[in-house]
Amino acid sequence: MTPHALSGPAARHHPEACTIGVDFGTLSGRAVVVRVRDGAELGSSVHEYRHAVIEDRLPATGVPLPPDWALQHPEDWREVLRTAVPAAVADAGIDPGRVIGIATDFTACTVLPTTPDGTPLALIPQWADRPHAWPKLWKHHAAQGQADRINALAHAHGEKWLARYGGKISAEWQYAKALQVLEEDPAVYAACARWIEAADWIVWQLTGEESRNTCTAGYKGIHQDGSYPSPDFLARLHPDFADFPATRLEHPPAPLGSRVGTLGGRAARWTGLPAGVAVAAGNVDAHVAAPAAGAVENGRMLAIMGTSTCHVLNAATLAEVPGICGVVDGGIVQGAYGYEAGQSAVGDIFAWWLRQCVPDHYRAEAAASGEDLHQLLTRKAAAGPVGAHGLVALDWMNGNRSPLVDHHLSGVIAGLTLDTRPEDVYRALLESTAYGTRMIVETFEGAGIPVEEFIVTGGLKKNALLMQIHADVLRRPVSLGTSDQGPALGSAIHAAVAAGAYPDVRSAASAMGSVKRHAYVPDPARADAYDALFSEYRALHDHFGTGADLLLHRLRRIRNTARLATAR
Amino acid sequence: MTPHALSGPAARHHPEACTIGVDFGTLSGRAVVVRVRDGAELGSSVHEYRHAVIEDRLPATGVPLPPDWALQHPEDWREVLRTAVPAAVADAGIDPGRVIGIATDFTACTVLPTTPDGTPLALIPQWADRPHAWPKLWKHHAAQGQADRINALAHAHGEKWLARYGGKISAEWQYAKALQVLEEDPAVYAACARWIEAADWIVWQLTGEESRNTCTAGYKGIHQDGSYPSPDFLARLHPDFADFPATRLEHPPAPLGSRVGTLGGRAARWTGLPAGVAVAAGNVDAHVAAPAAGAVENGRMLAIMGTSTCHVLNAATLAEVPGICGVVDGGIVQGAYGYEAGQSAVGDIFAWWLRQCVPDHYRAEAAASGEDLHQLLTRKAAAGPVGAHGLVALDWMNGNRSPLVDHHLSGVIAGLTLDTRPEDVYRALLESTAYGTRMIVETFEGAGIPVEEFIVTGGLKKNALLMQIHADVLRRPVSLGTSDQGPALGSAIHAAVAAGAYPDVRSAASAMGSVKRHAYVPDPARADAYDALFSEYRALHDHFGTGADLLLHRLRRIRNTARLATAR
Repeated sequence: MTPHALSGPAARHHPEACTIGVDFGTLSGRAVVVRVRDGAELGSSVHEYRHAVIEDRLPATGVPLPPDWALQHPEDWREVLRTAVPAAVADAGIDPGRVIGIATDFTACTVLPTTPDGTPLALIPQWADRPHAWPKLWKHHAAQGQADRINALAHAHGEKWLARYGGKISAEWQYAKALQVLEEDPAVYAACARWIEAADWIVWQLTGEESRNTCTAGYKGIHQDGSYPSPDFLARLHPDFADFPATRLEHPPAPLGSRVGTLGGRAARWTGLPAGVAVAAGNVDAHVAAPAAGAVENGRMLAIMGTSTCHVLNAATLAEVPGICGVVDGGIVQGAYGYEAGQSAVGDIFAWWLRQCVPDHYRAEAAASGEDLHQLLTRKAAAGPVGAHGLVALDWMNGNRSPLVDHHLSGVIAGLTLDTRPEDVYRALLESTAYGTRMIVETFEGAGIPVEEFIVTGGLKKNALLMQIHADVLRRPVSLGTSDQGPALGSAIHAAVAAGAYPDVRSAASAMGSVKRHAYVPDPARADAYDALFSEYRALHDHFGTGADLLLHRLRRIRNTARLATAR
Repeated sequence: MTPHALSGPAARHHPEACTIGVDFGTLSGRAVVVRVRDGAELGSSVHEYRHAVIEDRLPATGVPLPPDWALQHPEDWREVLRTAVPAAVADAGIDPGRVIGIATDFTACTVLPTTPDGTPLALIPQWADRPHAWPKLWKHHAAQGQADRINALAHAHGEKWLARYGGKISAEWQYAKALQVLEEDPAVYAACARWIEAADWIVWQLTGEESRNTCTAGYKGIHQDGSYPSPDFLARLHPDFADFPATRLEHPPAPLGSRVGTLGGRAARWTGLPAGVAVAAGNVDAHVAAPAAGAVENGRMLAIMGTSTCHVLNAATLAEVPGICGVVDGGIVQGAYGYEAGQSAVGDIFAWWLRQCVPDHYRAEAAASGEDLHQLLTRKAAAGPVGAHGLVALDWMNGNRSPLVDHHLSGVIAGLTLDTRPEDVYRALLESTAYGTRMIVETFEGAGIPVEEFIVTGGLKKNALLMQIHADVLRRPVSLGTSDQGPALGSAIHAAVAAGAYPDVRSAASAMGSVKRHAYVPDPARADAYDALFSEYRALHDHFGTGADLLLHRLRRIRNTARLATAR
């Protein structure tokens, strides 16, 4: 059986045809083997990145990094192709010949400088000790100064694209990060022939040819209505930045689900898959998950809750929504305006609390009851009525993505007393992320973009207390994406489209995705109690987040100055 | 040798004459045996209260308590006389006949209802299941509503005494607590013949006769210029409250250091001391410590830092200082205006953090290095430069005593990020208490009351990082009271005056007290860095504390409503 025998529309109902989705997360990559006709997940495998997130020092050379930096190692990503993909095929127990296509999704904006042939500068000995040669992970937040200047200039110039990004582009995105490279290490910038999303770079590794995708080009690369920001505009940021898109980005973005090439010989050897199978355009882990959770129809908001949360939502109309990450025509599925919003940290906040701030007798209690710490704290936190802890927190421990687009904000916990317990703070942190979600939902609705259903996928959907809090705080049912590997399944769906098994992502989603509708419904009394707390959250949010009080910015500046003084 | 042989001025230089000071703290009572001629501490003993702080349920009957309550058990206090006093004498290895006087000091306002003979209502079976029959500990904070009404009415009426208390009396004091009893359990109020400070009640146990002291009468009982608030005023709070001072308080307050009686037979049997030795007027643990640390001269502020902090300061002039706890003529030593300010929680905040929020691997590390957790966190916290943690906290986990006099405030921590560690928060909490101290010092100076020296006594003086932070934040040297048992030594000094060995407290303090001057001096660079952080603290303090934003009050109300709903 050759891949060709199963390719094309015939594969749609073929009992054997499979695709592979590979999801590159913050700490690991996951491959899943999916049956094309019904979305059944036949096997999967996870590979943890050896270098994880590089925040303190560069690998091997030990060069120290300033505050707010976050890098990754490209070899960790290739290792996912070499290990997780064949392991997933083995786990599925299938003949690799049944695989008709592969698609990938990535964190974004995770971006790197490469040579013309796609070689990461970080892997070239000459550049390996230069921090700016390394891939910048999405949560690299050291380009805030550049983002601020881009935003100020864009406002002053009335740049049309700015409204597509909620009035503010993020320090996480391609331009801010590239401008930081240009300004802080011009030699690396000069050596950078291509400035490419990891989402596209990994596809390049599969096909051997460069491609770009509509999703990252639009959301992270300011590609709107067919063009990038003008050289005139960019020149005012830095004379050498004028030709940045023309020289380092330009490549026609491919629609999502389209076939951008076929599996090359080297990648076929890495993965153990047949050379020549379809490879889909790159995609972003959040956006690609929508079809897996039945969230491609307009008005269905999908919240992908993990270390951070992305909210994706399709609508028929183009609107200017304050503080969203972006709106891109065809950014989630072709034929709709895809909106993206997000929370910079969610599960990361809960994990931070558990890691830093839970005393040993809780661990002992958890061990005795056979629970993990999350379960223990969840059980204890769930015991009290709404508001009994007396706390409200701002969920900004990693900044605020939407609606404030400000990564130099930080977290606040108010209402602490001497009888505040770890589970009280834990619950307040869970609640704070639900308040943050409500801010985002209300921002969409306030801008005329309807949110008709709220669907959750990602690791945190398992936390029943968190889900119930979301239902109560949002005053609306919470539906759950069925798959535990939504992004990887979403990629596999895109691969099926790229292989021609389905005519488009919507029809593939309808056959291969699934959702449990209204898994949690709001309790009216709790929802009322949360309304009171949410209004406190909103007041704190506005006070510290919208410029009334710049305390958190000043604290960040004091902190960074103090840390730099020590590092010197 | 009889006590008479050593009494009077001759005892001043007698090598054998001793006094006993007994300090009743929040969790334990401590007795110390002191040599009269030089203040040498010959022996001491501590007795932990069996019932500690009663916050959840009444002893024996198990009656549950509402939020913000804090009670104590009178028998725990008598047990200190029966155990700690003889143990201290034994520890000193002296003949009890060498003891010429005894004096006590107490937390305040800790206050209880008794029968005419001083029997606590709580110890009478008929009343034992009534929460209001029990002694209310200083940190009982459930009478805030009553305090608010007393303050509002006093403002409206232009009551002259109000300015003596910084414009606001505290919910911790005699009137608010008594009015709460009257309104919530009139039967207990009716059965209360005497409403008496524990400071005076314990003296009653020693002498067999009721007495009152200038310190608590002034600071906690609104006794100013020889009289209590008028019946007219009190009647407007509640008709049955008009005669409250006349019926339940009135008794001429005795000057501090004066002899109010002699040791009675029952107390002599309890303590093992000779009947007939001098017993001094009651006193408050903070105020009594001033002579022990050489802080009786005008302009020397003594901060007694423990679970909470009291600041006491003498001045030649009477001024209206906003938000201080009070100013009382002779309230610390005769012949000066004694000022008191305070912080509702200090060591309690650090202990809260350690108890609730430090993970087990820190405990393991502390065990391995032979440190306790405080030492470990202090060492880790001390490692970074000022401001490197990026945090600022409000030290209101038990409300704010000075300058805001508001016990329904609560703590805030701002600037949290995913890399915030337990030691970062710990240091921010240490710093927050120093900022709170600076607010108090600046409030005094702003009102024209000079603070010429800053002296620390109490358990926290051992924390070198905390002391250095105070020196840096205050931009002035920190001196340390030499004795580790300042209040008990202060009481022993008062006992020496009561026994006639010294003519007054000043001369006794000069012979028996001692201080290590300028043990810590400010570092200019750190002081500059702290100036920036203090201005952030002050802004947060003003925002959340002075009415601009009532968030913390609303959270408290939401919390208490939720808890009461569950308790029902």
